[in-house]
Amino acid sequence: MQNISEIENLIKLISKLPGLGPKSAKRIILKMINNRQELMRPLAHALTEVFKNVIRCKVCGTLKSNSSSCDNCENVSEKFNKICVVENIADQWAIESSSIFQGYFHILGGTLSTTNNQKKDDLLIDSLIERVKTNNIDEVILATSATIEGQTTAFYIQNSLKNTSIKVSKLAQGLPVGGEIENLDDGTLISAFKNRKNLANT
Amino acid sequence: MQNISEIENLIKLISKLPGLGPKSAKRIILKMINNRQELMRPLAHALTEVFKNVIRCKVCGTLKSNSSSCDNCENVSEKFNKICVVENIADQWAIESSSIFQGYFHILGGTLSTTNNQKKDDLLIDSLIERVKTNNIDEVILATSATIEGQTTAFYIQNSLKNTSIKVSKLAQGLPVGGEIENLDDGTLISAFKNRKNLANT
Repeated sequence: MQNISEIENLIKLISKLPGLGPKSAKRIILKMINNRQELMRPLAHALTEVFKNVIRCKVCGTLKSNSSSCDNCENVSEKFNKICVVENIADQWAIESSSIFQGYFHILGGTLSTTNNQKKDDLLIDSLIERVKTNNIDEVILATSATIEGQTTAFYIQNSLKNTSIKVSKLAQGLPVGGEIENLDDGTLISAFKNRKNLANT
Repeated sequence: MQNISEIENLIKLISKLPGLGPKSAKRIILKMINNRQELMRPLAHALTEVFKNVIRCKVCGTLKSNSSSCDNCENVSEKFNKICVVENIADQWAIESSSIFQGYFHILGGTLSTTNNQKKDDLLIDSLIERVKTNNIDEVILATSATIEGQTTAFYIQNSLKNTSIKVSKLAQGLPVGGEIENLDDGTLISAFKNRKNLANT
């Protein structure tokens, strides 16, 4: 590498990104060097812009522009009356890309966990309760993961909303679409049996 | 995505990098968002630094710091007396990582090609001849690709150095290490037969 420190530093940083190592980092840098104006310059600029301008909303946890109010929790119209509660931004993006849910999101920022030592105050739970009570919300959908931590967190939130008239639901558990019985784990099979649906007699 | 234009723009740009698409771009951005200070900030900075400070040397084609002279062709000691001629930076990096060559590099910036309409003046050929003649060089190793264009370019350079006392060599052609005969293409087999080596009789 002729010891160009800027390049070495860039390789080191790109190698830390998920799915990338030093080899792919070099390939990426070469592509950028060969496309300085069309790729390297705009990418450096775009990254700086995201760093400067995009933050997590302190109330609902979603990403928002630094300069404007949050589309997801401030100045919201009364168009939607459902809130979908997820653990992190990746979960929000996955649900958005499925187009199954129309409504507001609330990102907890993790789960209650004794192993991670993550406590209630590390998560945006209080602000969720506040949002639900002060806005025109009639359903809270708990879309936390089907892990012990995810389900514990869902149970905690469900409990916190017990004395309100708001409907609280959680995602169904069962066979994943395309799942072959022989390859599924015991937990999924047990849950699919327990939650089996009666079919209408024809 | 809640239509945050900065994020959408960044996804679009990262998706253009080799080996990456919109899905991996999102995964990368999430990792950066979760590591703003340790990853996103230094990466934005490093990329800007490379864009501002790293350029291709106009004489030898290798990458160099904007502010300093070129380690590969200016103020060079007389430590080495070989120049390895390659097509592009990726080739230089591959040869460097094999540690087989100790000497100076010269990056042509492509090959003579009628299909690409790439002509002699687009490549750093004149400066190569100049470098070879004015420095204490005793061997020019032509490490261009084993393609028609690569070999044509090598032949052109070989011809340009015909009337000098400098040794000109090119890389051997034959079986790649680990290559199984049954899977090799005709061209490689023909070249391996033509270049077969006599073994000493014991």
